[in-house]
Amino acid sequence: MKNKKKKKSYKVKNLSPGTMAYKGKKESSLIDIDIINYNQNIYNVVNSKNIEDAFSLKEKDVITWININGLNNLEDIEKLGKNYGLHPLTLEDIVNTQHRPKMDEFEDYLFIVFKMLYYKSDDELYYEHMSMVVGEGFVITFQEADGDVFDDLRERISNVRGRLRNSNSDYLMYAILDAVVDNYLTVIEAFGDKVEDLEDTVFSAEPNNDVSNNIQAHKREILKIRRSIVPLREVINRLEKTECTIINEKTHNFLRDLYDHIVQVNENIELYREMVWGLMDMYMTIISNKMNEVMKVLTIIATIFIPLTFIAGIYGMNFENIPELHHKYGYYILWGVMVVIFIMMLIYFRRKKWL
Amino acid sequence: MKNKKKKKSYKVKNLSPGTMAYKGKKESSLIDIDIINYNQNIYNVVNSKNIEDAFSLKEKDVITWININGLNNLEDIEKLGKNYGLHPLTLEDIVNTQHRPKMDEFEDYLFIVFKMLYYKSDDELYYEHMSMVVGEGFVITFQEADGDVFDDLRERISNVRGRLRNSNSDYLMYAILDAVVDNYLTVIEAFGDKVEDLEDTVFSAEPNNDVSNNIQAHKREILKIRRSIVPLREVINRLEKTECTIINEKTHNFLRDLYDHIVQVNENIELYREMVWGLMDMYMTIISNKMNEVMKVLTIIATIFIPLTFIAGIYGMNFENIPELHHKYGYYILWGVMVVIFIMMLIYFRRKKWL
Amino acid sequence: MKNKKKKKSYKVKNLSPGTMAYKGKKESSLIDIDIINYNQNIYNVVNSKNIEDAFSLKEKDVITWININGLNNLEDIEKLGKNYGLHPLTLEDIVNTQHRPKMDEFEDYLFIVFKMLYYKSDDELYYEHMSMVVGEGFVITFQEADGDVFDDLRERISNVRGRLRNSNSDYLMYAILDAVVDNYLTVIEAFGDKVEDLEDTVFSAEPNNDVSNNIQAHKREILKIRRSIVPLREVINRLEKTECTIINEKTHNFLRDLYDHIVQVNENIELYREMVWGLMDMYMTIISNKMNEVMKVLTIIATIFIPLTFIAGIYGMNFENIPELHHKYGYYILWGVMVVIFIMMLIYFRRKKWL
Amino acid sequence: MKNKKKKKSYKVKNLSPGTMAYKGKKESSLIDIDIINYNQNIYNVVNSKNIEDAFSLKEKDVITWININGLNNLEDIEKLGKNYGLHPLTLEDIVNTQHRPKMDEFEDYLFIVFKMLYYKSDDELYYEHMSMVVGEGFVITFQEADGDVFDDLRERISNVRGRLRNSNSDYLMYAILDAVVDNYLTVIEAFGDKVEDLEDTVFSAEPNNDVSNNIQAHKREILKIRRSIVPLREVINRLEKTECTIINEKTHNFLRDLYDHIVQVNENIELYREMVWGLMDMYMTIISNKMNEVMKVLTIIATIFIPLTFIAGIYGMNFENIPELHHKYGYYILWGVMVVIFIMMLIYFRRKKWL
Amino acid sequence: MKNKKKKKSYKVKNLSPGTMAYKGKKESSLIDIDIINYNQNIYNVVNSKNIEDAFSLKEKDVITWININGLNNLEDIEKLGKNYGLHPLTLEDIVNTQHRPKMDEFEDYLFIVFKMLYYKSDDELYYEHMSMVVGEGFVITFQEADGDVFDDLRERISNVRGRLRNSNSDYLMYAILDAVVDNYLTVIEAFGDKVEDLEDTVFSAEPNNDVSNNIQAHKREILKIRRSIVPLREVINRLEKTECTIINEKTHNFLRDLYDHIVQVNENIELYREMVWGLMDMYMTIISNKMNEVMKVLTIIATIFIPLTFIAGIYGMNFENIPELHHKYGYYILWGVMVVIFIMMLIYFRRKKWL
Repeated sequence: MKNKKKKKSYKVKNLSPGTMAYKGKKESSLIDIDIINYNQNIYNVVNSKNIEDAFSLKEKDVITWININGLNNLEDIEKLGKNYGLHPLTLEDIVNTQHRPKMDEFEDYLFIVFKMLYYKSDDELYYEHMSMVVGEGFVITFQEADGDVFDDLRERISNVRGRLRNSNSDYLMYAILDAVVDNYLTVIEAFGDKVEDLEDTVFSAEPNNDVSNNIQAHKREILKIRRSIVPLREVINRLEKTECTIINEKTHNFLRDLYDHIVQVNENIELYREMVWGLMDMYMTIISNKMNEVMKVLTIIATIFIPLTFIAGIYGMNFENIPELHHKYGYYILWGVMVVIFIMMLIYFRRKKWL
Repeated sequence: MKNKKKKKSYKVKNLSPGTMAYKGKKESSLIDIDIINYNQNIYNVVNSKNIEDAFSLKEKDVITWININGLNNLEDIEKLGKNYGLHPLTLEDIVNTQHRPKMDEFEDYLFIVFKMLYYKSDDELYYEHMSMVVGEGFVITFQEADGDVFDDLRERISNVRGRLRNSNSDYLMYAILDAVVDNYLTVIEAFGDKVEDLEDTVFSAEPNNDVSNNIQAHKREILKIRRSIVPLREVINRLEKTECTIINEKTHNFLRDLYDHIVQVNENIELYREMVWGLMDMYMTIISNKMNEVMKVLTIIATIFIPLTFIAGIYGMNFENIPELHHKYGYYILWGVMVVIFIMMLIYFRRKKWL
Repeated sequence: MKNKKKKKSYKVKNLSPGTMAYKGKKESSLIDIDIINYNQNIYNVVNSKNIEDAFSLKEKDVITWININGLNNLEDIEKLGKNYGLHPLTLEDIVNTQHRPKMDEFEDYLFIVFKMLYYKSDDELYYEHMSMVVGEGFVITFQEADGDVFDDLRERISNVRGRLRNSNSDYLMYAILDAVVDNYLTVIEAFGDKVEDLEDTVFSAEPNNDVSNNIQAHKREILKIRRSIVPLREVINRLEKTECTIINEKTHNFLRDLYDHIVQVNENIELYREMVWGLMDMYMTIISNKMNEVMKVLTIIATIFIPLTFIAGIYGMNFENIPELHHKYGYYILWGVMVVIFIMMLIYFRRKKWL
Repeated sequence: MKNKKKKKSYKVKNLSPGTMAYKGKKESSLIDIDIINYNQNIYNVVNSKNIEDAFSLKEKDVITWININGLNNLEDIEKLGKNYGLHPLTLEDIVNTQHRPKMDEFEDYLFIVFKMLYYKSDDELYYEHMSMVVGEGFVITFQEADGDVFDDLRERISNVRGRLRNSNSDYLMYAILDAVVDNYLTVIEAFGDKVEDLEDTVFSAEPNNDVSNNIQAHKREILKIRRSIVPLREVINRLEKTECTIINEKTHNFLRDLYDHIVQVNENIELYREMVWGLMDMYMTIISNKMNEVMKVLTIIATIFIPLTFIAGIYGMNFENIPELHHKYGYYILWGVMVVIFIMMLIYFRRKKWL
Repeated sequence: MKNKKKKKSYKVKNLSPGTMAYKGKKESSLIDIDIINYNQNIYNVVNSKNIEDAFSLKEKDVITWININGLNNLEDIEKLGKNYGLHPLTLEDIVNTQHRPKMDEFEDYLFIVFKMLYYKSDDELYYEHMSMVVGEGFVITFQEADGDVFDDLRERISNVRGRLRNSNSDYLMYAILDAVVDNYLTVIEAFGDKVEDLEDTVFSAEPNNDVSNNIQAHKREILKIRRSIVPLREVINRLEKTECTIINEKTHNFLRDLYDHIVQVNENIELYREMVWGLMDMYMTIISNKMNEVMKVLTIIATIFIPLTFIAGIYGMNFENIPELHHKYGYYILWGVMVVIFIMMLIYFRRKKWL
């Protein structure tokens, strides 16, 4: 982490608007292209590493879905952009992996930016920048890395009877977004389970900074999830309301349904956010409870033995004239007195409900 | 709980939109159908296990209320959907028991999703997914399990003179929603009493993690109640404002009244939410008060006896030349001094209001 | 309180909409009716226990104000409703003492629900449900119990020269609401003084659970005040903007002024709410301050005497060969060493500003 | 303070709307009137105690600014109101010193209520109720007491070349409000400095209730400032957007600028509010830090000396057969052991970073 | 800091609106002017100290960018204002370095105020007031001090092929704002890293007031960043929506993109604000954890040794008749008993998980 900080120079990188600058982490410049052409009758899949294969496939009455994996081969993406008439700002945002979710309407196409979130096996949350260009008869999706979120979707396209085969590119766009939002629901559910685990830990573990740290990490995580997902709600809302001709009347019902789903995702995010926030307060009371318990033990021990020790100290004094010391049963009487004091103390503590 | 977590795989279940997937807990695939046909003169009730009985009953000038209990017989529900011309997305949402409350307007019918909440005898809150299709002359309600919320309503339908018998299906829809919202008021009232009990516990109980846990559980509960109820407010607001022909002018007055009721429910939810939130803060002060009390006891005992023990220690030393030890009344004088110190300490603590 | 909880059954009381159900506490079914008829020249007052007296009095060019005290004689109120053509929902809300403030516009009349709040001598806040029907030429107000809020108003009506005598029923409605809002201002002012008293208590009292309890009670109180008053703001706003013919153009200026007043009431509520909320935080720091003080006393005493006691313990040991013990002035030297240690400790604590 | 509370009776003072009731603190009924008449060529100033002087001065093509100091001579103000055709509600609000800032548009004039805030030498914040009537060719301002806020303004009027001399009464209104808002900026700046001082105190002072009290007092102060200033934002916004003919097109630019200023004032208020709120949290951590430090001292002393005292106690026992006591160097060996224990303890504490 | 406070007099400086008053810190009255003239073919740069050079350069079909460094030479700026027909309020706001970001539309030009933020090497945040006048064919920017934010931009202008050279003054305005917003992103990123460092410190450092102070300082910083940046969002939103003729249709796409960027900046600000706020809570739990640990050490030591010391005290008493003392192995038996007690205590603490 230290190294990371050292590297940063905070130099203002004020590039010309429309200049493409890849801000992701992947370093290989390989690009991987999946092209699916389909309509009611046709269905063929092409996999290629050569960007030119994505140029000539557009046929009449066929829906083409081009999926680009890998965003750091700027040249190839620029070529693609020229071929499909994409605005320079669109190209800039395709490769700017830090851009927030948004939608832009251009004359010929819609451009949508969103984030994929998934938990890998190490329980950490990964973010992937995605974008999508939706035109008449084609959809181009751009991914940083190869994910498996769309496998179900591809299978559904291969199914001749599915609604997808009988619909236009706008329905494919909806199907992609639907897959993304379904994925969000899964991520939020997983986060919810993590929060429940954390709650259990908070109650059972001995207070220590790991727990504080853990709660704080969950706070950060839900804030980042929120930042990645919440803007998509507005995007879908605008998609539903847009008068853009690419989106058919029939698809609006589906978009409205999608909007309900993203609203539900957002409500769940808020729910877990409030619960994580509440955890810190609760943890504070738990620490205080523990400290209270510790203090009680100390107080009970000290309160019982300090006066008794004082009494023992009295008869350890070397005064010449201490009559009690010479009493035959003095020692036994003293023990008796001490036991009485001890019992009275116990009764006192029990009354205070400290024992 | 551990087991539950193990089972979850967080696999993205990206089904084709319009695909029905039952997400509830009930496993039996039995379906239970109550059909009520009524108008000003007619009133008959049919109970059946066979979904086909719900298809042919639609007669002219008769209101038909079909209540379906059990959502996991997907085939039957699909058949019903085809018979009544329901959109695939509607069917998907009928059986998706995790869907949030919402309203969809279709050409021929209104579709409303909402939640039933009730406390069972074990003081835990149960959620039930419900949905309702309202068409011209018929209402179909879908329940996960058989509840008794509508018993009063059924009785009112059987009453020849009631307004229900003289009204259309939109008034039946209103009457059903009214029963639901009345039920919410009862649930919130019960929750409010639980919060008051909790407040009493917080004050009387010795601080321990059960109390923290209990407050946190109430926080969770009110957050979940809120999530289940609050969206219905928007649904009812839209119902009141919709220009859909199914809803007659006359019913708008009633829907406005219903809207006032759901607003009141929401206000009560916010009220109790703020009170539960405040409880955690208050509990923190109570713990601190207790700790303060514990510390005072310790401090009083230690402050009184530690100096006295020191004095006793002094005269327990074995120096050859300690003149006090040889004084005839040394021991008695020392006792006097100690009593004086003791009394002065008591006065000091009383001045500080620690005693 | 226990009993109260036992009684509650949380049975859903889903009555037919428009069914009247008195939910208040008053048990006598007596009804007390004050009728005032007035215009520029006429002024007469009738007091009656018989509801029929309220039916025939409506004359041309005379404003009639009928004030009903007591809401649990449902029959009488229903008769009145029929006589004046009130909607069943209006009748339901007149006697539903738990209904939130609202306004309904009907064809012939406006219906307004609001709450009266007042502190009785026992410093507790009482809520009274009130409602008002405003028609062309008459105003009917419904009260749970006989209050004195409108005494000033009645006096002003009796004054021939007052604006009331020259105005229509809408101005009487305004005058009643104005009296209510003035009353709110008084209640909030009284609450503000209670908060100031509480603040004084928090500072002066020894920390104990009564104080926490007291703050929590004030939180509850302001939340309930808010719930009773805030919705009236929206009611008055809608009254000002309504195009209902009952309200004359001239009265709008007054309603706007009234709106300013209710906004001021709401601002004061928010002000005191934030102050009460802040009190809990402040109380927490006060408890911590006290504990800090307690701990300091303990630490000072222990830190001074524990080392000294240790030294005394050293020379209380029975080793045969402890040369210091045989020194002629050993005892005196030791006292000297102890005094030096004592003084150094005092200096140390003073530097730490603990003394 | 006690006395103040005793005096309050919380009697609802429901006066007839439009009834003037002075609620301020000033008791003298003297009134002090400053009249300035000016246009491009004319400029004269009159000071008078006689309200009639304010009636006849209105000439054609001359702007008249009448400034009334003192609001408790209700008769005079009523006469003035009649002379200038002011609505009774306007008169009521002129003398109701507790009214919140607002704007009313009447046919012939605009009526604006606002507050003057200033710190006197005793660092306490004073509030002064002000109002302003703006008509075609005249402005009347009402002040509780004589302030010096408008001295600069008067000087600017006396300057022949100033924009004021060439503008209408609406520009004078703007100039007065501009002076008020400039004054707010100064007050907020002073409050900001007080908050910074408070922050210093919180860090340097030994925790005690004065600090808590001080933070709470600042909370109260900023809440009250906010309540006095924030509503003026809406007033100025409406002034800018009003279509009232008194306000010329040319003045709108200035009002928009004024609106920017009042928005900035509000942003500063929110900034300081959040900072004061944060102070309480920070103060809590500071108290805890101090307590932590106190506890460490206690723990270090007790942990070092309690075991050593125990060892000394062991060899203070009077058993006949304790071989160590008879060892020639027993005493010296024991000292060695004790020193070793002491050093090990110090190392332990240093490792824990407690020393 | 004390001095600074002394200097402030809180005198209301109510200057005539449109009066220029420099409120910045720079004292030299030197002014530094950079003038760039360009179009598709022409490109020349002039640097001058003489304000008159900025008057005559406006040629047809050439875009002129005049950058003024230094705001305290009021005369020069006034001359410039007269030359370009700037409104007095514009001139006032150009030199009022405390003005919040805003946009004013005048007939001939747009006026935009914004802030530059940057971290210097000392890790402190500096604010610089900037403003911009955009007219047909020219842009004038006003800076307090010479910054390097626009160096990239100047280079891009010098590039013949760039979009800037083929665009109008509105695109130059966009390019300047884009550079500013890019700079914001960098500042926020740097702040984010500071927050992460702070979080590390909070976890690792021993609790002390520096940490509290540090968190509070970060709170202040993010609040001030927010105040400087957030209003620009509204400015850009209005720029995008304005119908002012200076802004061409083509530029709207770019302004929308810029709006997305400023929204992202604001989201990041909110994210870090919530994280800094959460830090204080977390720090509180960390302090409590540490105190808990301290208390445990004290309690363990005291609980083990106080009873043992009591036992030793018993056998240090000087009673004549204590039989145990005369037992041959009494001393050894006692040691055995003490070791057993010690071990039992250890087991007890381990069970409580305190060890």
